Amino acid sequence: MASVFTKIVNGELPAYKIAENDKYLAFLDINPLAEGHTLVIPKQEIDKFFDLDDDLLAGLIVFAKKVAQALEKAIECKRVGSLVVGTEVPHAHLHLIPFKSEPQVCITAPKLKLTQQEFEQIAEKIRKFIPEEIAVKS
Amino acid sequence: MASVFTKIVNGELPAYKIAENDKYLAFLDINPLAEGHTLVIPKQEIDKFFDLDDDLLAGLIVFAKKVAQALEKAIECKRVGSLVVGTEVPHAHLHLIPFKSEPQVCITAPKLKLTQQEFEQIAEKIRKFIPEEIAVKS
Repeated sequence: MASVFTKIVNGELPAYKIAENDKYLAFLDINPLAEGHTLVIPKQEIDKFFDLDDDLLAGLIVFAKKVAQALEKAIECKRVGSLVVGTEVPHAHLHLIPFKSEPQVCITAPKLKLTQQEFEQIAEKIRKFIPEEIAVKS
Repeated sequence: MASVFTKIVNGELPAYKIAENDKYLAFLDINPLAEGHTLVIPKQEIDKFFDLDDDLLAGLIVFAKKVAQALEKAIECKRVGSLVVGTEVPHAHLHLIPFKSEPQVCITAPKLKLTQQEFEQIAEKIRKFIPEEIAVKS
């Protein structure tokens, strides 16, 4: 069965998309650890992060860098942390977390509750800083 | 002033080295969140992880993958998580954490206390699974 992330890639589930190209997608985590908490995934469904082949993995981190730099400009934070745990959804994903305090960069930390409008406003704010080559098309 | 990690790179401070090449170094975290907790750094001293230029960043994650795969073979764990926070030492570093439970992948979680002998045994166990091209020379 397709992962929830593959369903997002295929447009079968909605997401607050942040950035995209042919190989990767970034979208807001709907259970955010911090404002602007974003997931970066390969479109190809591979369970474990370090099972990505070298080129796909290298490309993902460079794609994630562009997203992280946009987050840092858009969201008030100390830094953008990143996190791979992998036991939440069996489709490799990198969490980018613009944190104000270090304990936020922890998958088991308390989550924010945001309205649909708040998610949309946050996504819009971040998309302003995303370079054109990975801007969301639709 | 040189970071503590630069001092490790230069041999001015000791470390339990796991893997190395001309650009990157992996060594055990001396305040481990889990057995086998390893830090991967660029030898070049750059504060923020996502300030690494694209090639250096891409190379680091591919180097880290080889170390993560060795950790997964050497250490009993659920998975190898990874974490970048960056406020601990001003020299970019990726934590690789072979976790048994998700809350271990959190920089503020309780640390293990290990003896020098235990660190040496863990390092030796991991080095057996490191590919020759990034094996520690000295």
